[in-house]
Amino acid sequence: MSDLLALKKEIIKKYGTPCAVVDLNVLEGNISRVQKLCDKAGVSNRPHIKTHKSGEIALMQLNAGASGVTCQKLGEAEVMASAGVKDILIATNVLGAASSGALAALQKRISLKVCTDNTYSIKAYSDAARDAGRVLDVLVECDTGQKRAGVETPEEAFRLAKLIEDDSYLNFKGLLYYPTKDTWNETEFFNAKLIKFLSQINLIPEIVSTGGTPNLQSVGKLSGSTEHRAGTCVFNDLMMINDGFATIDDCALRVYTSVVSRAGKDRGILDAGSKTLTSDLGGLTGYGSILEYPDAIIEKLAEEHGFLNLINCAVQPEVGEIVRVIPNHVCVVVNMFNELVLVRDSKIIDVIKVEARGLLV
Amino acid sequence: MSDLLALKKEIIKKYGTPCAVVDLNVLEGNISRVQKLCDKAGVSNRPHIKTHKSGEIALMQLNAGASGVTCQKLGEAEVMASAGVKDILIATNVLGAASSGALAALQKRISLKVCTDNTYSIKAYSDAARDAGRVLDVLVECDTGQKRAGVETPEEAFRLAKLIEDDSYLNFKGLLYYPTKDTWNETEFFNAKLIKFLSQINLIPEIVSTGGTPNLQSVGKLSGSTEHRAGTCVFNDLMMINDGFATIDDCALRVYTSVVSRAGKDRGILDAGSKTLTSDLGGLTGYGSILEYPDAIIEKLAEEHGFLNLINCAVQPEVGEIVRVIPNHVCVVVNMFNELVLVRDSKIIDVIKVEARGLLV
Repeated sequence: MSDLLALKKEIIKKYGTPCAVVDLNVLEGNISRVQKLCDKAGVSNRPHIKTHKSGEIALMQLNAGASGVTCQKLGEAEVMASAGVKDILIATNVLGAASSGALAALQKRISLKVCTDNTYSIKAYSDAARDAGRVLDVLVECDTGQKRAGVETPEEAFRLAKLIEDDSYLNFKGLLYYPTKDTWNETEFFNAKLIKFLSQINLIPEIVSTGGTPNLQSVGKLSGSTEHRAGTCVFNDLMMINDGFATIDDCALRVYTSVVSRAGKDRGILDAGSKTLTSDLGGLTGYGSILEYPDAIIEKLAEEHGFLNLINCAVQPEVGEIVRVIPNHVCVVVNMFNELVLVRDSKIIDVIKVEARGLLV
Repeated sequence: MSDLLALKKEIIKKYGTPCAVVDLNVLEGNISRVQKLCDKAGVSNRPHIKTHKSGEIALMQLNAGASGVTCQKLGEAEVMASAGVKDILIATNVLGAASSGALAALQKRISLKVCTDNTYSIKAYSDAARDAGRVLDVLVECDTGQKRAGVETPEEAFRLAKLIEDDSYLNFKGLLYYPTKDTWNETEFFNAKLIKFLSQINLIPEIVSTGGTPNLQSVGKLSGSTEHRAGTCVFNDLMMINDGFATIDDCALRVYTSVVSRAGKDRGILDAGSKTLTSDLGGLTGYGSILEYPDAIIEKLAEEHGFLNLINCAVQPEVGEIVRVIPNHVCVVVNMFNELVLVRDSKIIDVIKVEARGLLV
């Protein structure tokens, strides 16, 4: 029996299917590669932990040289703090957490950095920091043409930076944005305007944070950029392959799933559906790629079923076969599981919890 | 302050946002309505718990008259058994659980019914039942034209029923299918052929299970149908409204979410994204409907952000406002949360765990 077949049999015997399995060799390679890209560009690496939601993997990233972590929810930051991470940036307005007292409670434990694009959250942050009895670092999120969160003009960013600096419980820490290939002109926004406005009142953004795995290819190119936050690159997925950042060999997470039905010619059913692979298409065809049967298409999902179209497969899988699926979008797939199984050289090494999933704030 | 506004403030203060909130009055009305529909049709009601994944809500359904529950995963059945449910049907091939020993372990605790559409899972079930030292009830799943799991012909169903009956660890318990409006002829498949084949060898399907919330409108119409399994009707959602089964007032679960950004005119950001509302469109436009702003469109999702298009809103929400979203597909949304908050008459009554989410088998 091949090592892979033996591993598959061990996985299903110990855990059943569907099961999220992470290859440690690939994971370590990915962590190292990203760190080198950031080191070479001279910017700090602050990985976004939304992808793995695990304290253990965050510590691997920090040990490899990351300066801290980025979170998208306060609940994620709580998990990171409990894992021993000291330097945490939350890359969005966390109004729910500010209102619930969760932000103040966490800020009592560790120093946090949060983001804003409006006066309402500045007020909420100030109240939370007062409750915590500790000054809170705040970054201004700038819009990038994607029309996500973030102020749309350098003038508005400047106004918010001043409001933050004038608040005795808040400290203006810097700027955060997500680079795009859109028409939006970063150089104009930052270098020609915002940085000049700020320097006129002696405000220097200690942090200028850029984001995204695809943007690692041009990391550090914006003058003034101090750090980068990328998430997906820790595992990679079909979207990152499509973006030209990764190859199939760079994809560290595979969903092991059983073929549970072959009721018709040229079709079959996996025990991984939308509650495993999610409905995220990410501009791709199908809901993931099967390593063993690259010509098979997962063309539809029910909640616990993946519908296989096997018409292009010269050899077709049998009922009972275990196959490995590389997901379209790994960040949302990890979020479906309570646990990840870690393997190396086809041996099971450990099982870790996806600690930060399902949390409210 | 209105009762609703007070409730919103209490929700965000206690739990933050996004938060899944279930209205008990609506929930109880839904449970009662489905029970009456089944009673009137003379079929047993065996609700599918994939929608709520909670022992507590399953017990409410049983107390209202349900004969047992349906699960889609063995992990769900484990949770139901621990909650005290005695009569459990798992409505699919559970190969992963049969291989991992989880099926045998649960069968030692309670009597289970499982489904098959192939000889491989019959063999796996037989092995599991032998390990458990207890005969396992097996239903044959029949395909309905949807090309999901299920045998495609009455002849194949008959062959599997005989194999089950001939196995000393298995008992042929009946048939299971999902009615459709497709061209597939249920009467021909069952009444004209399969039931006749079976009666020739004195095999009587004790259970004939039909499924689906939309099919509640014609429940019991197939001659021989003994029970119905519907899931979504316990909460309802936009898909069920679209199918004509429910109105907005029948939707028991609302996602409370904060408007966290209004950086541009006619647009805004909610703190509920694809890790809350999921990417399931279900043939609809947008990712949910906002009760307070029915003209707003949640037109795109990032993982923790919902992108609001407010161009059609005469009045637009402000940053900091909490709004209630009725999801497209409630079953996958519940699966995103660890907890549900139960309310009645705008008062918080309880918080229950979504116990059966994130499990492997």
